[in-house]
Amino acid sequence: METMEHRSHVDTCFDCAAACEHCATACLKEEQVQMMADCIRLCRECADFCTMCGRLTARDSQFMRQFMVLCADVCQACADECGKHDHEHCKACAEACRKCADECRHMGASA
Amino acid sequence: METMEHRSHVDTCFDCAAACEHCATACLKEEQVQMMADCIRLCRECADFCTMCGRLTARDSQFMRQFMVLCADVCQACADECGKHDHEHCKACAEACRKCADECRHMGASA
Amino acid sequence: METMEHRSHVDTCFDCAAACEHCATACLKEEQVQMMADCIRLCRECADFCTMCGRLTARDSQFMRQFMVLCADVCQACADECGKHDHEHCKACAEACRKCADECRHMGASA
Amino acid sequence: METMEHRSHVDTCFDCAAACEHCATACLKEEQVQMMADCIRLCRECADFCTMCGRLTARDSQFMRQFMVLCADVCQACADECGKHDHEHCKACAEACRKCADECRHMGASA
Repeated sequence: METMEHRSHVDTCFDCAAACEHCATACLKEEQVQMMADCIRLCRECADFCTMCGRLTARDSQFMRQFMVLCADVCQACADECGKHDHEHCKACAEACRKCADECRHMGASA
Repeated sequence: METMEHRSHVDTCFDCAAACEHCATACLKEEQVQMMADCIRLCRECADFCTMCGRLTARDSQFMRQFMVLCADVCQACADECGKHDHEHCKACAEACRKCADECRHMGASA
Repeated sequence: METMEHRSHVDTCFDCAAACEHCATACLKEEQVQMMADCIRLCRECADFCTMCGRLTARDSQFMRQFMVLCADVCQACADECGKHDHEHCKACAEACRKCADECRHMGASA
Repeated sequence: METMEHRSHVDTCFDCAAACEHCATACLKEEQVQMMADCIRLCRECADFCTMCGRLTARDSQFMRQFMVLCADVCQACADECGKHDHEHCKACAEACRKCADECRHMGASA
């Protein structure tokens, strides 16, 4: 317990949360906010889930594997929505979400 | 707004949150839990504050500078307590907290 | 320590957080999302701050008074913005934010 | 969407989160901290899960039903542990956790 296990997944989760926070803020400033409504909604969800996933992983929670399974779905939904838009913040967010979805799916399956 | 400002501070905050989550969990498993009670309490506080600081910074919140001023105090208190203990997780946490306290103090002052 | 102090403020904070979450979601579904962009942004901030304020109060945190001072500002900003709109969810949110701002200001001053 | 659905479940979640925050703090001040280590650990988990469950419910999240299924497990684990102790804060927390577990299980099943 002296060193943090799964450190790299913790970083992936927090990177994704940061990308989602940034994307939500940037979307709210776009001229066509209407078109970005789902993106804003899902970025809010994904930021909350990935933040919690990072924290559960860092604390080696007994519930982290089950949480990851659900977190993978949230990341995937956000990646799919962000992937529809051409803004740089959406493209960066989609990439961070896809990476986090893959890792969560993989780690959640090894429970 | 296309790229995230203050990206490096976001990382510092989330690194500190991760160190605090890990330290709190590890402290709860130590034989001398009694001696670690303040450390556990402050790691819980600091993990919550640094997580929120990372998120506010990533979203470029209008309240982030004021939050950083307070977050610096929380990080400093946690660094001081962790610095009293010889466990590897405490030493690593104290170092992460000191770094985050310094950055928060600096950024909070430039409001 | 057997009973929770400031229980009524904890409820006020969580009520405000719930109103902000609901208002942000409802605003994202309005036809005129553009007009609601600031409301969505501030509801997101206020939901985060009030949730944390409720938790810090419930745990009797040594940092709760300082946090309340800042939380009062966030609640006030959200109340002012929500107060500009005629949607039922905005009016309910403005009222919850005003109540929370008042209590946070009062409790924060008695530090 | 003008009024918040499931308002009563939102309150149950936040009540449970508050009870867990209070219990964790009180446990850390008990003379026999060693005996309370699992209780502190699970209260931390349960406070995080119930806070998020309250927020997801208030925002009518598309992921809330799946989250409730997992949240019910966390609440049940915390109720079982708190139920072993005679402190008033543990008994109050166990009761809040059982109520939240039941509601989450019921609502999660109606997805």
